[in-house]
Amino acid sequence: MSINNIEFSTKPDSGTSGLYGEDFLLTWEKSRADLETILAVAEDLKMLRDNNISPRCFDSGLAISQFRDNSTRTRFSFASAANLLGLAVQDLDEGKSQIAHGETVRETSAMISFLSDIIGIRDDMFLGAGNTYMREVGAALDEAFADGVLPQRPGIINLQCDIDHPTQSMADLLHLKTVFGSLDNLKGKKIAMTWAYSPSYGKPLSVPQGIIGLMTRLGMQVDLAFPEGYGLIPEVVGLAGKQAKESGGSFRTVNTMEEAFDGADIVYPKSWAPFHVMQRRTELLRKNDHDGLKGLEKECLANNARYKNWECTEEKMKLTKEGKALYMHCLPADISSVSCKEGEVAATVFERYRVPLYKQAGFKPYIIAAMMLTNRFENPAEVLMGMGKKGTRRVS
Amino acid sequence: MSINNIEFSTKPDSGTSGLYGEDFLLTWEKSRADLETILAVAEDLKMLRDNNISPRCFDSGLAISQFRDNSTRTRFSFASAANLLGLAVQDLDEGKSQIAHGETVRETSAMISFLSDIIGIRDDMFLGAGNTYMREVGAALDEAFADGVLPQRPGIINLQCDIDHPTQSMADLLHLKTVFGSLDNLKGKKIAMTWAYSPSYGKPLSVPQGIIGLMTRLGMQVDLAFPEGYGLIPEVVGLAGKQAKESGGSFRTVNTMEEAFDGADIVYPKSWAPFHVMQRRTELLRKNDHDGLKGLEKECLANNARYKNWECTEEKMKLTKEGKALYMHCLPADISSVSCKEGEVAATVFERYRVPLYKQAGFKPYIIAAMMLTNRFENPAEVLMGMGKKGTRRVS
Amino acid sequence: MSINNIEFSTKPDSGTSGLYGEDFLLTWEKSRADLETILAVAEDLKMLRDNNISPRCFDSGLAISQFRDNSTRTRFSFASAANLLGLAVQDLDEGKSQIAHGETVRETSAMISFLSDIIGIRDDMFLGAGNTYMREVGAALDEAFADGVLPQRPGIINLQCDIDHPTQSMADLLHLKTVFGSLDNLKGKKIAMTWAYSPSYGKPLSVPQGIIGLMTRLGMQVDLAFPEGYGLIPEVVGLAGKQAKESGGSFRTVNTMEEAFDGADIVYPKSWAPFHVMQRRTELLRKNDHDGLKGLEKECLANNARYKNWECTEEKMKLTKEGKALYMHCLPADISSVSCKEGEVAATVFERYRVPLYKQAGFKPYIIAAMMLTNRFENPAEVLMGMGKKGTRRVS
Repeated sequence: MSINNIEFSTKPDSGTSGLYGEDFLLTWEKSRADLETILAVAEDLKMLRDNNISPRCFDSGLAISQFRDNSTRTRFSFASAANLLGLAVQDLDEGKSQIAHGETVRETSAMISFLSDIIGIRDDMFLGAGNTYMREVGAALDEAFADGVLPQRPGIINLQCDIDHPTQSMADLLHLKTVFGSLDNLKGKKIAMTWAYSPSYGKPLSVPQGIIGLMTRLGMQVDLAFPEGYGLIPEVVGLAGKQAKESGGSFRTVNTMEEAFDGADIVYPKSWAPFHVMQRRTELLRKNDHDGLKGLEKECLANNARYKNWECTEEKMKLTKEGKALYMHCLPADISSVSCKEGEVAATVFERYRVPLYKQAGFKPYIIAAMMLTNRFENPAEVLMGMGKKGTRRVS
Repeated sequence: MSINNIEFSTKPDSGTSGLYGEDFLLTWEKSRADLETILAVAEDLKMLRDNNISPRCFDSGLAISQFRDNSTRTRFSFASAANLLGLAVQDLDEGKSQIAHGETVRETSAMISFLSDIIGIRDDMFLGAGNTYMREVGAALDEAFADGVLPQRPGIINLQCDIDHPTQSMADLLHLKTVFGSLDNLKGKKIAMTWAYSPSYGKPLSVPQGIIGLMTRLGMQVDLAFPEGYGLIPEVVGLAGKQAKESGGSFRTVNTMEEAFDGADIVYPKSWAPFHVMQRRTELLRKNDHDGLKGLEKECLANNARYKNWECTEEKMKLTKEGKALYMHCLPADISSVSCKEGEVAATVFERYRVPLYKQAGFKPYIIAAMMLTNRFENPAEVLMGMGKKGTRRVS
Repeated sequence: MSINNIEFSTKPDSGTSGLYGEDFLLTWEKSRADLETILAVAEDLKMLRDNNISPRCFDSGLAISQFRDNSTRTRFSFASAANLLGLAVQDLDEGKSQIAHGETVRETSAMISFLSDIIGIRDDMFLGAGNTYMREVGAALDEAFADGVLPQRPGIINLQCDIDHPTQSMADLLHLKTVFGSLDNLKGKKIAMTWAYSPSYGKPLSVPQGIIGLMTRLGMQVDLAFPEGYGLIPEVVGLAGKQAKESGGSFRTVNTMEEAFDGADIVYPKSWAPFHVMQRRTELLRKNDHDGLKGLEKECLANNARYKNWECTEEKMKLTKEGKALYMHCLPADISSVSCKEGEVAATVFERYRVPLYKQAGFKPYIIAAMMLTNRFENPAEVLMGMGKKGTRRVS
C-alpha cells in the first residue's frame, strides 16, 4: 500500500534551519517557519499513522528520557513518539544511577549518549534551574561530539522546564490550527491566559509562559490575567509584549478573569504559583528546609484561598465571544466537585469541552515525534514522502 | 525460509467473534470457539518462534502495562508477548504519574492510549474493585474512540483481577491440552481445585475462581475443596455449577483435600484468603487502617494455622488416579521446607512435577500474545499463515 | 548502501569456542583467541554503526537486566547494546517481583527466560555471592533447557560481580588496543593498577581484580599498589602472577603509588575497600546490622583518611614514562575539589585525560554487544559480513 496521491503538509521548502541538529528548548528561539514545519510534520506523521503507514525511520536507536518531576501525558507522549519513529526509550532514573555520587552533568551527559539519538528532559521544580540544566547538558554534548567522544550529537527536547513547556504549547497551537482551520485564521483572535484557583500550590509557570511566549507571535490578542502577586517571569512577559507588537497582535496584563474572558475566542484558565513564591520555594528546596517549605505552602494556600472566585464558571464563559470560547487546559485540571471541592473550572464547563480537551492532548505525541524527526533529518519532506511511497504497514 | 508445509492449529473458520476488538476480562464471557481459537493461536505462535520464524505483526505500537500488585511471571509474559508481536511495553507507574492528583480514570485511560494497541492490567488487591476498574477503563476507551479522541480502541487484557485470572487459567488449559492430547480428552477427567495451607495470607481468589470458571466448561469433573469459611465469590461458584451441567461434567464443593484428591486426574492445591476476609481487608485497605490490617492478618494467620494439614503430601497424592495425578500450580508455590517451614506442597511432590510446572508457566507468554493478536486481527489464521509464508527469521 | 569493500576485524577463523552458547562471567575463563574475537566484533559493530549500517540481527527477543546495585554507564551500555542488535530490554526489578516471597533462584531464572536471549546481571554487593549467584542462575538455565522448559538457553553476561567486571576490563582493553595500536604493542608496557583515596567506602574490588586478571595475559608489566590492609581476593592475585609468567610479562605488588607509577605507560588509580572489610560488610549486610554497618563505615573511613596522599597528582604523573602515562578510570572518579574535597585524582590530571576517559567508557556498549552476538551466533564473521552486505541503514 502506498499513499502517493495524498498531499503532505510538509513542503520541500519548509523551514528547518533552526531544527536540524538544534535542541528544542524554547519556542521563541525558533523561527516562525521552523514552528510551522513542526506543525506540518506532526500533521503528516498523524496522517501516515492514521492510514496505517509506519513512519519508522530508525532501525535502532535510543530516546533517553529524564523526568525530574512526575508525568503521565508527557511520559506517554514521549514514549509513543519514540516508538513511532523506531527508537527505544531508556529512562535515566537518577535514583538508580551514580549521579548522586557527585558525578558531573558533563560526564553523565556523555555517558548516556554513546548510542543515543534523542534526550528528552523534564526539569521544572527549581526556578532558574531547569532550562539552565538542559543547556548544561547541551553544552556537554556539544563538547563530547566535538571531542570525538560521541559519534552523533543527540538532540535535546525540553519536556517542560521552569521557563517554557514547548511540547505543550506547540500541541496547543496544533489544536488551535485544527479548530480554527489555519494559523492565519488565528490572527486577531483573542486568547485569555488566566490564573485560576487550585487547592494545591507550587504548580510551574511554564504553561502560561509557554502560551504567552508562543501565541503572541501569531497576531493574536493575548490577555494575561492573574491576581496581584501572581506574576510570571518578567523577561517572558516582556518578550510577549515585544512579539505581540511585531506580529500585529496585542498583549496586555489584566487583574480579573472577567476582563480577560470578555469577548475571548479562546480561554486557558490554569493555576500557577507566584513567581516570587517559586523563588522562595527553590531556595528552600535547595536547603532541604522542610519546615520552611511547609510554612510556605500554608502561607501560599491561604493566599490562594483569597482567590477562589478565579474559577472558570458558566457565568464567566458567557462573557466570551458569543459565550462559546474554546476552553483549553494542559490537563489534568482541578475540576470543582470532581477532582476537588473548589478548583479551576466548573464541572459543566469542563465536561462540555472534554472531547476537544482530549484531542488537544492527543497532538502531543505527534509534536514530540516531529521535534525528534526534524532534529535528525535535514529534509523532513523527503523523509515523509519516502515513508508514504514505501508504505510499510504499521499493523500488518 | 518458509514453513508452508507445516500445519497450523488455527483454522480459517476459527471463532473470533468475541475476540476481535473485544477485551479479554473473564473466560466465561467468551464462547467455547473463541477460547479454542486462543489456544490454537498460542500454539501456532509458539510453533513459529520455535522454528525461528518471527511472528511480528506490528512495525511499531505500544502495549501498556499497569500492575497494581507485584508480578514476575505475568510481567515477563506480557513483555515477551508484546515484544514477540512487535509492540514496545510502556509501564504505567501510578507513583510516577499525575494520577494521585485526582485525575479521573476516564481521563488517564484516554491520555495513555493515543498510540497504544493493548493495555494489560493487574488489579487484584481490592475485592469488587479490580474487574470493575478494568471495565471503567474499557468504557472510557469506548467513549474516547467514539468521540474521535482515539484513532483506535486499544484492547484490554486482564492480567489478574479480583474475579478471574484468565491468562493463568488459559495457560493452564493449554498445558492440560498438551499433556492430555486434546480438549476432548479432558472430558470426564477429574480435577481437584483445593485450598492449601500457606504461612502468608491475603492471596487473591482469582486463580481458584479462574480454574472452576473455565474447567467446568470442558465436561470435566471439578471438585472444589476448602476448609469451612474459605469460600469463593458465590456468583462464580454458582456459575461453575451451571457450566458443569451444560458441558456434561460435574461440579461439587467438598470439605477435605482427601475427598477432592480421591481418583483425581489433576490436582491444583493452592492457598487463598477467605472471601469474607478479603471483603474486610478491602474495607481496611480503603480506610488505610494499618492497625486493623495487622489485626486481621494475625487473626487470619491463626485461622490458617488450624489447617496446616491441608498440604499436598505424598500420602495425599496416593489417593489420586493411580497415584499419578498431574500436579498443577500457578507458581510460586509455598513449598514445605524449601520456601517456608510448612506450606502448600511437600518438597518431593513439587520436585517430581517441577518440569511440567515450569512448562505450564511457559504457555503464558503465548496465551497473552494470542489474546493480543486476536484482539487486533479479525482473521488470525490468515495473519499466521502470512507469517509462515513470509518466513522472516527471528534470529538472523 | 553496502560496505563490502571495508575490511572487517573479525576473521572467519576467529576463536569462538568459549563464546558461542557460553556465559561470559570471568575473562580468565576465556581463551586469548576468544577475547580477541570479542574485541574484533566490538570494533566491527562500531564500524558498522558509524557507517550508518544497522547491525540488527534479532527481529524480536528480550535482553533481561538485573541490577542489584546502582548503575548508569553499564545500564545504558547494556540497553544500547541490546537495542543495537534488535533486542528489547526488560528489567527484573526484585522489588516489584515475587522474589521476596521465597521463590527460588532456580524457579525465577526459568520464569523470566521463556522468550529471552540474554540475561545481564550486576551483583557486586556481597563478597562471595555475586559470581556465585550468576552461576546459580546459569545452572538453573542449563537445567531448564535440558528439561525442555526453555526453547533456548539464554546467555548470561556478568555486568559486575564481586570477583570480576569483564565488560569494564574488556572495554578498557579495547581502549588500550586503540590507543597503542594493537594488542602486540601492549607487550612489555607497564600498567599501574593502584588504590587511591576516596571519601567514600565500600567500593567493589571487581575493577582492580578485573584489570590484573586481564592485563597480565598480554605480556604487560602489571604493578598492583595499595596501602597495607587493602589487599584483593588472594585467588585473583595468585592467578595474576601465574598469568604474567605465562604471557612473558610480570606482576608484582608494591606498597606505594610512586613505585607503581615509576616509568608506567598506563596508570589506573582507583579506590576500593579492603578485602577483609568487604567480608565483614557482607556479614553485616546479611544480618541487616545497621549499627554494625555504621561502625564499620566510620572505622573504614578513618582508616582511609590515613592514606589521603594516595592521590593521582601532577607530581606523581611526572614519575611515569616521560610524564605522559595514559590515565585510566572506570568512572565516575572522585576528583579532588570537583566531586569531593580530596579524592582519587587531581582535577588537572583528570581534565587532561577527560576525552580519552570518555572514549574508554564509549567502548562498553560495543563490548557488551559483542558478548551478546558471540553468545548467540557461532560464526560472528559471517553474521557481520552479512550485515555489511545487506547494508540496512540504521537511520533511514
